[in-house]
Amino acid sequence: MIELVGLDADDTLWHNEPLYTDRRERFRELLARYEPEGVLDDRLYEVELRNLQHFGYGVKGFVLSMIETAIELTRGRVESSDIGTIIGWGREMLCSPTELLDGVSEAIEALGRHYPLVLITKGDLLDQQSKLARSGLGRHFKGIEIVSEKDAGVYAGVMERHSVSPSHFVMVGNSLRSDILPAIAAGAHAVYVPYEMSWIHERVPTEALADVHYHQVSHMRELPALLATLDRKGVSP
Amino acid sequence: MIELVGLDADDTLWHNEPLYTDRRERFRELLARYEPEGVLDDRLYEVELRNLQHFGYGVKGFVLSMIETAIELTRGRVESSDIGTIIGWGREMLCSPTELLDGVSEAIEALGRHYPLVLITKGDLLDQQSKLARSGLGRHFKGIEIVSEKDAGVYAGVMERHSVSPSHFVMVGNSLRSDILPAIAAGAHAVYVPYEMSWIHERVPTEALADVHYHQVSHMRELPALLATLDRKGVSP
Repeated sequence: MIELVGLDADDTLWHNEPLYTDRRERFRELLARYEPEGVLDDRLYEVELRNLQHFGYGVKGFVLSMIETAIELTRGRVESSDIGTIIGWGREMLCSPTELLDGVSEAIEALGRHYPLVLITKGDLLDQQSKLARSGLGRHFKGIEIVSEKDAGVYAGVMERHSVSPSHFVMVGNSLRSDILPAIAAGAHAVYVPYEMSWIHERVPTEALADVHYHQVSHMRELPALLATLDRKGVSP
Repeated sequence: MIELVGLDADDTLWHNEPLYTDRRERFRELLARYEPEGVLDDRLYEVELRNLQHFGYGVKGFVLSMIETAIELTRGRVESSDIGTIIGWGREMLCSPTELLDGVSEAIEALGRHYPLVLITKGDLLDQQSKLARSGLGRHFKGIEIVSEKDAGVYAGVMERHSVSPSHFVMVGNSLRSDILPAIAAGAHAVYVPYEMSWIHERVPTEALADVHYHQVSHMRELPALLATLDRKGVSP
């Protein structure tokens, strides 16, 4: 019996990566004025990784990393009006419309009729709450779990807080590294729904997916039927 | 019977405001080089308030607001090396040692023996988790509740998640506006522990404190005894 379904938010329920991809592109154009040749992509990624431990995930940390990269790459020549522009991108990202992935609305409505749902995300709480509110899906969710990392211990904590044992919990998401492998390691079932683009930091070797707890659908539309099947069979291995 | 004690984090368990006050001071000095007269304090505060809805509370939003204020006040003349300095302050704030308020360690240890404790805070999850870990108090806490606002509805949600009715919940904190009044409005008890400094945004008219659910201690040391008394009398009015 499925007693709780955890759903990742960004790029599982709504488009998120395109917001970042678009600003990375504009950032490249902005800096091209200072450094016509500039090998930029790696540098921003390096700064983001370096800052993860301090700034965590989400738009604000991304903006701070872009500003730092701009200062470093231009050796301080970047104009403050351009820095203002970068901050403006952050504000835009935070209030841009929530664009649901195709079929998500129907899938969540169907799931919500059968199971308690929780959103489990590494983003900023304010940002994710506001996206959930604007998505119109909020009423189907029992709650939002904001986590600073998604590892097996964190999933165990979520299950404990909701008094659900691993064999009755299913995690759904687009990241093998964050949503799927650690949930399986914590003894839960996991359903991988690939997203068309994925951030470089998310790419992982895909061994260990031969687990009986691993499931994959190519589209959120297929999720309700998969969970119904799991539920009938009993989710325990 | 007290079944759950909620504790605010910043300036209730550990010093936080001095980190901000110190950077506000350095920010004033930094900008004095561009604007010798500059009436700065109000301006930064205005930008912070304007950004709250987008950036929320916490260090990263504070840093972004300082950068914006610097660009606006200098009409774009601020040098990017100074912007780099401001970002550096943010990183420093996020990894500065957690300085517990006097007596907190003993108080939390005593409370932890009798009641489940949760940290309830508006800060960034990563930042608060890391402070709690560095404080050495983590093992006394059942969990961290990150909330984007502290209003009566949010406290009701916390109590619901922990299956505690308002008359069995006590909230403890240094902010009348965030910790005390909304908890009382949600039907809970609240204990005000004033902090020596408070952010201007936190100041509220102190009417409505004549509630039977309102309690005050002048120091965290006094908290265990107060809760023991409440517990004996029964916390219901």
